[in-house]
Amino acid sequence: MALDKQHDSADADAVRGLIERWAAAVRAHDYEGILAEHAPGIVMFDVPPPLLSRGIDEYRRTWDLFFTVHEPGDAFDVLDLEVTAGRDVAFAVALMRCGGSHDGEGEAYLLDFRLTVGLRKLAGRWQIVHEHHSVPAD
Amino acid sequence: MALDKQHDSADADAVRGLIERWAAAVRAHDYEGILAEHAPGIVMFDVPPPLLSRGIDEYRRTWDLFFTVHEPGDAFDVLDLEVTAGRDVAFAVALMRCGGSHDGEGEAYLLDFRLTVGLRKLAGRWQIVHEHHSVPAD
Repeated sequence: MALDKQHDSADADAVRGLIERWAAAVRAHDYEGILAEHAPGIVMFDVPPPLLSRGIDEYRRTWDLFFTVHEPGDAFDVLDLEVTAGRDVAFAVALMRCGGSHDGEGEAYLLDFRLTVGLRKLAGRWQIVHEHHSVPAD
Repeated sequence: MALDKQHDSADADAVRGLIERWAAAVRAHDYEGILAEHAPGIVMFDVPPPLLSRGIDEYRRTWDLFFTVHEPGDAFDVLDLEVTAGRDVAFAVALMRCGGSHDGEGEAYLLDFRLTVGLRKLAGRWQIVHEHHSVPAD
């Protein structure tokens, strides 16, 4: 991807690091890590219904649902990430891949999806205030 | 929706106005208006495939496709919009509704979808560098 005139800043690096840590926490089913850098009022647009989840409790439940399919160690990978960061507002645009080929009980799956993340810097710390995950409609 | 600690600034108002103008241009099938405030390198995640469209020419073609269903004057409405604006980076999160009940040839339809928009201020002007439109997967 190529968004126009990327900022190439310490802030962009901080946001990139945050997103990679979050993805690693998802791979490990580490809820504390998944939720560590999210604002209480996060607005989540997830791949499956509902249309919208609001607040950290509803956000957490979207992961309960995902982990009925995704097993610890399955892929949840940032394939391509572009960060646009200002002084206290940033957003990130990514192509993502999740999946696993289970020899055990789980069914094999592979899903490429789109991710947009909105962030604010509060008290010197970047926080995720919005996530939008989706696949194209059939 | 309630993203944490909204900026309530002239910049947020400018972004809000931009998005409302863009939606009005979509309702009118006014391509010049639709494209007026978009960066050349826009990255678009649309409701239908493909996974990603890159650049203003591909972005324009996503509207060619939409206008095979949407007729001029059909709904394309911003139901709920939250803008987070910094000095030169902003993002907007919205619930949207499009549809039309056609007495003529077109089929009636109604679609609620999610919209996230990423913007940069360049030379004093806000520009859309990213759009993410989606519906939850079945």
